[in-house]
Amino acid sequence: MKQYPRALNRLINELSKLPGIGGKTAQRLAFHILSLSDREAETLAEAIVGAKRGLRYCSVCGNLTDQEQCFICSDATRDRSVICVVETPQDVMAMERIREYRGLYHVLHGAISPAEGIGPNDINLKSLITRLQGDSEVKEIIIATNPNIEGEATAMYISRLLKPAGIKVTRIAHGIPVGGDLEYADEVTLLKAVEGRREI
Amino acid sequence: MKQYPRALNRLINELSKLPGIGGKTAQRLAFHILSLSDREAETLAEAIVGAKRGLRYCSVCGNLTDQEQCFICSDATRDRSVICVVETPQDVMAMERIREYRGLYHVLHGAISPAEGIGPNDINLKSLITRLQGDSEVKEIIIATNPNIEGEATAMYISRLLKPAGIKVTRIAHGIPVGGDLEYADEVTLLKAVEGRREI
Repeated sequence: MKQYPRALNRLINELSKLPGIGGKTAQRLAFHILSLSDREAETLAEAIVGAKRGLRYCSVCGNLTDQEQCFICSDATRDRSVICVVETPQDVMAMERIREYRGLYHVLHGAISPAEGIGPNDINLKSLITRLQGDSEVKEIIIATNPNIEGEATAMYISRLLKPAGIKVTRIAHGIPVGGDLEYADEVTLLKAVEGRREI
Repeated sequence: MKQYPRALNRLINELSKLPGIGGKTAQRLAFHILSLSDREAETLAEAIVGAKRGLRYCSVCGNLTDQEQCFICSDATRDRSVICVVETPQDVMAMERIREYRGLYHVLHGAISPAEGIGPNDINLKSLITRLQGDSEVKEIIIATNPNIEGEATAMYISRLLKPAGIKVTRIAHGIPVGGDLEYADEVTLLKAVEGRREI
């Protein structure tokens, strides 16, 4: 069977490398891109290269930024006594969406995973320690890593590392999601929900 | 709520303009692109611009190509007595996948749709007429537009246009898909299947 022209095959091939984009979707996207004006296609291409070139990690917390420090670290109104430790910049945005948390962040860019050979030195953890040593203002570290094996292992590791230094280390609660259904909750979540019960 | 850095927002915004890519997916793709190496991101960007710049429509049939004529029109072994009329270059590839059809194609780049104000002059139809006038070899036109209102209207229009010229015009069969289930077939498809029944 003959193939599409080379330039089109190349585009389909590149698009299908993206996560969640299979061959069919890549083909559909490629034909859509062909239907764009030259200007629109260039804008998309520039946005890709521009994002790669223009973005870096905040020198303090590791969040994504186009400045030396991210918009949270450079915001004087944030509460500098609390640091929330998350795995990714996306998690920072998730936390920001609750509009309740006013402290700072520390982005690990991963989680400890012995199975995948990712140890404490492979994530952005050392800089958290350095940060805490140079800053006596911090009263609490909230660990908001994901509630899976890697996230729990990371939480446990950080907690053991920091507790001797007399810093309060907390973990976000696990439980039934609001609007969720008890009947369909998995056993582990339900167990965590019962364990984490509070007096009302 | 604060936003992502500008370059990231721009990328998310551009990606979410693609068909079938919502805000969440655009965000996921954007973060994936950030995780690529500079070289990989540039390769993707170049593939987008390269496809737009390097591709054009075959001067004979309207199929996508990077040459003056597409690989089918320039293939001397193809049967030049049959032209299959399709709506898009994707349809050409679908036809090619059956590995049975050895004739030529004509790509309309759309279908007649009075509802959307698309008339016979808005699709690549005039060039088919010109093509037939200059080529007495053609014995049959197979119309393989989609089996929907627009595709049927287009098939009907082309058939009425060409029949007076004594060219055989055929339409691909509608019916139950192979492997399909009679019970779940819609009434129109089933009706077409019965209408199109053949002696065995």
